[in-house]
Amino acid sequence: MSVDLHGTGPRTPGTATRGETVPTVPPAETAADAVEVSALLERGRTLATPVLRAAVDRLAPPMDTVAAYHFGWIDAQGNPADGDGGKAVRPALALLSAQAAGEAPEVGVPGAVAVELVHNFSLLHDDLMDGDEQRRHRDTVWKVHGPAQAILVGDALFALASEILLELGTVEAGRAARRLTAATRALIDGQAQDISYEHRDRVSVAECQEMEGNKTGALLACASSIGAVLGGADDRTADNLETYGYHLGLAFQAVDDLLGIWGDPEATGKQTWSDLRQRKKSLPVVAALAAGGPASERLGGILAEDAKSSDFENFSEEEFAARAALIEEAGGRDWTIQEARRQHTIAIEALDAVRMPPEVRARFTALADFVVVRKR
Amino acid sequence: MSVDLHGTGPRTPGTATRGETVPTVPPAETAADAVEVSALLERGRTLATPVLRAAVDRLAPPMDTVAAYHFGWIDAQGNPADGDGGKAVRPALALLSAQAAGEAPEVGVPGAVAVELVHNFSLLHDDLMDGDEQRRHRDTVWKVHGPAQAILVGDALFALASEILLELGTVEAGRAARRLTAATRALIDGQAQDISYEHRDRVSVAECQEMEGNKTGALLACASSIGAVLGGADDRTADNLETYGYHLGLAFQAVDDLLGIWGDPEATGKQTWSDLRQRKKSLPVVAALAAGGPASERLGGILAEDAKSSDFENFSEEEFAARAALIEEAGGRDWTIQEARRQHTIAIEALDAVRMPPEVRARFTALADFVVVRKR
Repeated sequence: MSVDLHGTGPRTPGTATRGETVPTVPPAETAADAVEVSALLERGRTLATPVLRAAVDRLAPPMDTVAAYHFGWIDAQGNPADGDGGKAVRPALALLSAQAAGEAPEVGVPGAVAVELVHNFSLLHDDLMDGDEQRRHRDTVWKVHGPAQAILVGDALFALASEILLELGTVEAGRAARRLTAATRALIDGQAQDISYEHRDRVSVAECQEMEGNKTGALLACASSIGAVLGGADDRTADNLETYGYHLGLAFQAVDDLLGIWGDPEATGKQTWSDLRQRKKSLPVVAALAAGGPASERLGGILAEDAKSSDFENFSEEEFAARAALIEEAGGRDWTIQEARRQHTIAIEALDAVRMPPEVRARFTALADFVVVRKR
Repeated sequence: MSVDLHGTGPRTPGTATRGETVPTVPPAETAADAVEVSALLERGRTLATPVLRAAVDRLAPPMDTVAAYHFGWIDAQGNPADGDGGKAVRPALALLSAQAAGEAPEVGVPGAVAVELVHNFSLLHDDLMDGDEQRRHRDTVWKVHGPAQAILVGDALFALASEILLELGTVEAGRAARRLTAATRALIDGQAQDISYEHRDRVSVAECQEMEGNKTGALLACASSIGAVLGGADDRTADNLETYGYHLGLAFQAVDDLLGIWGDPEATGKQTWSDLRQRKKSLPVVAALAAGGPASERLGGILAEDAKSSDFENFSEEEFAARAALIEEAGGRDWTIQEARRQHTIAIEALDAVRMPPEVRARFTALADFVVVRKR
């Protein structure tokens, strides 16, 4: 699949064809940096996955099996699988945040696992609410095991998340659980906003970012601070790490929104023009609509027609490509790229307020860079 | 609606026609006892409801409205209503358990509210999973506001429950939250068992009771101890109060299962023969099937046919009445009445292991008596 978007409108240097990365990181990035990030992600996976699997094993049948399918550990027939468990950015952040508090990364493990459980609880429920049939290149849980199991196993993962923290029995664990609960409420608020925006003609850029802050920012904020909280960090330190994570989340989501339109399906595991097919009012779309000018107005007219169309499901590749081209021409793509950079910068700056070992700070920075250059 | 069940099989003294209570409490019960229980329930409502409403008000729109509808505070059009908020046994128990630890009932309020939130989270999700269209004489949330809102608001209530406890910020609150999380996991296990039993031909009495212990016992256990935990009681005291609540829950559920077949629809707010219509493998049914003998075998044959029938929805009152009569003839009704009494006794005995003021013990006993004589 290859759609050339060049020449569809005014371009700023650096905007990219499908599958190219958002060029936020200066070209000075070295191979060593890349290795560092993959090692960080790998460490998160290596330390968190066994504890996550042990937690899921506590579930009564058939919930244990359904959860194992969701995490990609088994296939739909119950045979062992080596599925795509996601990028594992959250566990990496949780371990790093323990180090920010001067503790060993292991101190962050229960936090990493609890955050992953909440994240996957929300995926199970959101996929069902949104009717999404594919996730990580596989059929979603409700599609394979039915809606009741998606609800039930989601609930169970949410409960397990609290359990993992609270059974530590420490004051720090109670504080961590409280922050995680607040993040979970934000997650739920964000999903409520997402659903309500679907029924509206227009959504402002501010509303879209508030929703994305709730859906993505809050849990990345929690992941970035939970290890520190478990390590005994004070509230100010935790709050500053949350600020880093929150803006990293907004940068992450801006990139996600770019990939949702211009991403390479091979890399993302989603359909081409996936967000456009779902009529998602994502950042590039709302920014394009807010921009004004001829392309913006043309886009507004076309999307208003689309909203009424009963044949939308059968639109051709070319029709979606034309919409993507209009979004780009109206400036929605460039604006979102700049916004990813801006949020990335705010995230990095928040780290200045936290006293931590320089190598830990460098790793937080490397993870932030990774988030905005990723292709999936 | 009146179906006379007399003369359908062997009767032991004390079995009742539709709407009569299960006569577990000795006739010596006085009017004063009855007043005491209604005052206890009223106190629970009066102290817990404002805090519950304030908690629900924290939800972002439209979740606050959907939750208010669920709790019966507004109708489907959003107008204020004075709906049936349930029996409020759980809040009454939570306040009483604070008194068992020598504290004021108010100490139990956050626990009462957290337990109510978890209870209602499970109702929202279970009604959707089970396809139940009516609850407390009104359409269920998924029926009025759609499945997505039922999932979302359920999730939000679950999160609020943790929030209410953890924001107290005390070690006791952390312990209470941990016990509530364990109860919630049991609740989810019970619902998973309930769903899986629907697809099976036979369920044993032990399996049915394990399921009911999870679905009803665990949360009543938590309600009966959470006030004490918040009041600083030690684990042994909390465990003994949980034992009381767990067996009270089994008694409660046995009565519920009796009402689900022989209850007065006016009082229960459910259809006649409601559990039979849903092919529910409730205690009277599984006990009748396990009893052996001609009526038991006849019942087994009929229910096996029913399971294959595509016309089951349209069965007449008389056909359901005939099944109920067979369950009674096979001894399922009497066994369940005896079981309610037995569990009631175990619950009361568990109180002996807890040192508490005699008037508090008397109230725990009165609440247990109420649970087994109720008509709704």
